[in-house]
Amino acid sequence: MDLRSHQDLLEMVPELPEVEQCFLANLQLPVMEKMALQSSFLHEQKGKKVRPALFLITARSQGTVRKELIPVAAALELFHTATLLHDDVVDGARFRRHRPTINQLLGNKMAVLTGDFLFARAFKLLTAYGSIEIVDLMANVVAEMSSGELQQQLDAFEPTLTEEEYLERNRQKTAAFMAACCMAGGIAAGAEDRVNLAFYRYGLHLGMSFQLVDDILDFYGGLKGTGKEACSDLRNGIVTLPLIHTLQVSDKREQIRAWIREGKLDRERIDPILSEVNKSGGLNYSAGKAEQYMQKALHFLKEIPSPEVVENLKMISNLVLHQL
Amino acid sequence: MDLRSHQDLLEMVPELPEVEQCFLANLQLPVMEKMALQSSFLHEQKGKKVRPALFLITARSQGTVRKELIPVAAALELFHTATLLHDDVVDGARFRRHRPTINQLLGNKMAVLTGDFLFARAFKLLTAYGSIEIVDLMANVVAEMSSGELQQQLDAFEPTLTEEEYLERNRQKTAAFMAACCMAGGIAAGAEDRVNLAFYRYGLHLGMSFQLVDDILDFYGGLKGTGKEACSDLRNGIVTLPLIHTLQVSDKREQIRAWIREGKLDRERIDPILSEVNKSGGLNYSAGKAEQYMQKALHFLKEIPSPEVVENLKMISNLVLHQL
Repeated sequence: MDLRSHQDLLEMVPELPEVEQCFLANLQLPVMEKMALQSSFLHEQKGKKVRPALFLITARSQGTVRKELIPVAAALELFHTATLLHDDVVDGARFRRHRPTINQLLGNKMAVLTGDFLFARAFKLLTAYGSIEIVDLMANVVAEMSSGELQQQLDAFEPTLTEEEYLERNRQKTAAFMAACCMAGGIAAGAEDRVNLAFYRYGLHLGMSFQLVDDILDFYGGLKGTGKEACSDLRNGIVTLPLIHTLQVSDKREQIRAWIREGKLDRERIDPILSEVNKSGGLNYSAGKAEQYMQKALHFLKEIPSPEVVENLKMISNLVLHQL
Repeated sequence: MDLRSHQDLLEMVPELPEVEQCFLANLQLPVMEKMALQSSFLHEQKGKKVRPALFLITARSQGTVRKELIPVAAALELFHTATLLHDDVVDGARFRRHRPTINQLLGNKMAVLTGDFLFARAFKLLTAYGSIEIVDLMANVVAEMSSGELQQQLDAFEPTLTEEEYLERNRQKTAAFMAACCMAGGIAAGAEDRVNLAFYRYGLHLGMSFQLVDDILDFYGGLKGTGKEACSDLRNGIVTLPLIHTLQVSDKREQIRAWIREGKLDRERIDPILSEVNKSGGLNYSAGKAEQYMQKALHFLKEIPSPEVVENLKMISNLVLHQL
């Protein structure tokens, strides 16, 4: 996310600096200080707070945001950070947003345990707020996310993955979390069931769109500021929609399938695959899907009574589609 | 734990087979079936259910155990299993109870994600029961356990670790969980605060004793049926009380300290260290400490009004001291 979009987000959600403070306070414990994690986390987190923003926007649907929602918003970012730590271990990622990952800096062991610690702190903040419904929602999200990641591991180097399987995995990995963030805000605000359901569906479709865009950007790598290495998914054997589409339409599909199955996806093979993905329109196809999901997301906003909330969610959608 | 002690536990806690069923039901999801994890987990879990047993015994303090407590007991075992999965990744352990670990069978990635999944399912079972107090207790436990494990990683290959630091780490890693299991039972039974506090203190001292015995047994390795490799702690640079004591009294301490710092703890160095630990009475010293903690644990039982609960907790203590 660039500075401009960070500014947009801050204008919409002026509570974000407070969320940041609460988030950082929850990283503070003797053991973390010894690891000198703080500064690394600080940098890593700058400009990211999409999930707390979704929560705080929908929490405004019955009026102003109460102080006690700040720790709930921070908890959502802690959950997100915990999953990033574990995902980076799972993917063997060395960089995120142009900075070394925790597993790169301190090893896989520390990254696993720090992730567990952050999960626990996040649950702790939710129980302190006291809504068992929101705790339950987030326990579901963590179960969905880890199932989705497990599924992704099982599907690695598997060129027969279908579009439906890919989309279901994205729902579990990414969309269920964004849906829960939107709905949790509605629950905290005491919104009607009908409105909460609309929040959920909005967040779900937004999340689907977000993951589609993220997977497109992975083909470009560093270009758009994700700070990840180019084609990191492909190198890990993770098949995403641009490639799935290519494997359906390209006349080189048998060759590419064989390469994926063999698992030796080095530079010499990544380059021709990438060029084939471009040629076969795989990236455009995915971008079209992302656009469709976004349209569906916006469709659900009709159920939301507050014009200000609707306006803000539309702006968030725009940021997502142009990659936060 | 041998068959005899398993039988003792079953007589005390006849609900354990139901807990086992609920536990296994929560491992069932499509992704898990594909991993053929079930059978492995099944074997691994046989004969272990100390934490659910503690919970169900203390839950009986105001009368019989209600059906809805079975999933809570299963959740405690899920938390325990999740931490075992992550600990085995962190320690690079290849065996547990004579069976290959999940990280050994399916790799670190799957073990990390499966652990996350089990944490989430455990929280889910607790929210379904509906006591935010118990959810909060367990969020605390997970934070303590991961802090303790982080601390252990930071202290690895550090021969200046003190007895106090070691004991505090054990409190976080092990004792806080057992304390919470005992107290959660009291909370579920609606026991008085005074009684719940006594349960907590009993469990805390029991857990301290348990970890001390576990660390003694690590020096013997496979001998007593833990199924771990001998001196796995030492090989990972994890300094425990028998060694701390040895480093205080042995005249070879400078040599041993240097070896630990160098980090090359191979057979040629483990053997002389082990013989020095034996000679300096390090194992006896630790066993004495374990006995002291157990005496303190039993002392807190005076506050418990139900003679049956006291009787059962005494029996559990006995099983722990002779290693479950």
